[in-house]
Amino acid sequence: MEPGWDNSRRTLVPISTVKRLSLYLRLVEELAHTGQMTVSSSQLARGLSLTDAQVRKDLGYFGQLGRPGVGYAIADLAEKLREILGTNRISHVAVVGVGSLGRALLRYRGFETKGFHIAAAFDVSVSKVGRRFNGVVIHHLDDLPMVARRDEILLAILAVPADQAQSAAEIMCDSGIRGILNFAPVRLVVPEHVAVVPVDLAVQLEQLNFLIKSPLRAPRRRRT
Amino acid sequence: MEPGWDNSRRTLVPISTVKRLSLYLRLVEELAHTGQMTVSSSQLARGLSLTDAQVRKDLGYFGQLGRPGVGYAIADLAEKLREILGTNRISHVAVVGVGSLGRALLRYRGFETKGFHIAAAFDVSVSKVGRRFNGVVIHHLDDLPMVARRDEILLAILAVPADQAQSAAEIMCDSGIRGILNFAPVRLVVPEHVAVVPVDLAVQLEQLNFLIKSPLRAPRRRRT
Repeated sequence: MEPGWDNSRRTLVPISTVKRLSLYLRLVEELAHTGQMTVSSSQLARGLSLTDAQVRKDLGYFGQLGRPGVGYAIADLAEKLREILGTNRISHVAVVGVGSLGRALLRYRGFETKGFHIAAAFDVSVSKVGRRFNGVVIHHLDDLPMVARRDEILLAILAVPADQAQSAAEIMCDSGIRGILNFAPVRLVVPEHVAVVPVDLAVQLEQLNFLIKSPLRAPRRRRT
Repeated sequence: MEPGWDNSRRTLVPISTVKRLSLYLRLVEELAHTGQMTVSSSQLARGLSLTDAQVRKDLGYFGQLGRPGVGYAIADLAEKLREILGTNRISHVAVVGVGSLGRALLRYRGFETKGFHIAAAFDVSVSKVGRRFNGVVIHHLDDLPMVARRDEILLAILAVPADQAQSAAEIMCDSGIRGILNFAPVRLVVPEHVAVVPVDLAVQLEQLNFLIKSPLRAPRRRRT
């Protein structure tokens, strides 16, 4: 269970499987670059330090993607994973909150290459509204309903201070936003049809801390 | 395999297991709040959508933590996980690069509660050096070796533009930094004794995209 997720409600595809789909895709894309044509569930399992059974269970949610004794055709699997993740076409994303985090997100170059286009930004500060940052127009938060519908924005990144997060989230939900990436350190109360993924940067520091401090040895590597 | 990680070098504890340790800890801490005393590997597996075997394998790297037929004592498991992750005592962290992302990280409130103290910040801009931001002094990057050793800083967050990332990383490595959380969208070349964890924010957007678009249904929830 991820912090913030309530797994007590059963779903067809568990959120943890969804998280791993991105990792399968990254791995398959790396293998594609090497010229490899097929990959076995064992090789995928080794690459992600999962059991073979876990890989077969995860990918099994989406039908028969591989062929017994042959494995998965890498190009087909990559395409299928992109289709499942919805990243085979461009998704429009709004950034709500243009403080230091919002500006950093507007500058972040890792979104476009993965199929996400930051289409608009929103803030409540009159000194920001109407300006552009990194080519993205900053609208007043009150205009989110109109802009989101006009520009077909279903995803939003919430980057406002904690005490404004819930009220901003409510405006987002009323604007047709269906998914919120939440950087504010609060649990949001949203309608059932809206999905929220919280970002917890401390998790990655914990990994690093383990890697450098554990007597069980950090992985040694030169490139990363 | 996580983007940026080269898993071809064998390690005693796989990086994917390390990543899951944080998730086990979050789950165990949530269970502790409910007053539950013990937890089975099956319950941990369900909470994280893993197989029982995966949970036993992950935790098995750290010895016999549970008792057959009883499960894991929740308080003991939480303490053990914090000890393994090194978050049972405060770790000092440097933020390198005080642009919009760096400032957002200096404001981020999710680190202190998890045992990470931002002890110092570094930049090369003369207009920033010597100032404080959110109570943290901004030093010149040239002073990183002295400050890191004086303040026992082993972890650093790299938040500089892509074209400055490698040179900043080299200064970090020469300063005794052992772990780098890398927000720059480049692969760093670092010595073998330094661990790097890359941050890929697109992964979380992919999860959201799946949750809102898949015909297989997004998990429905009200709080997250």
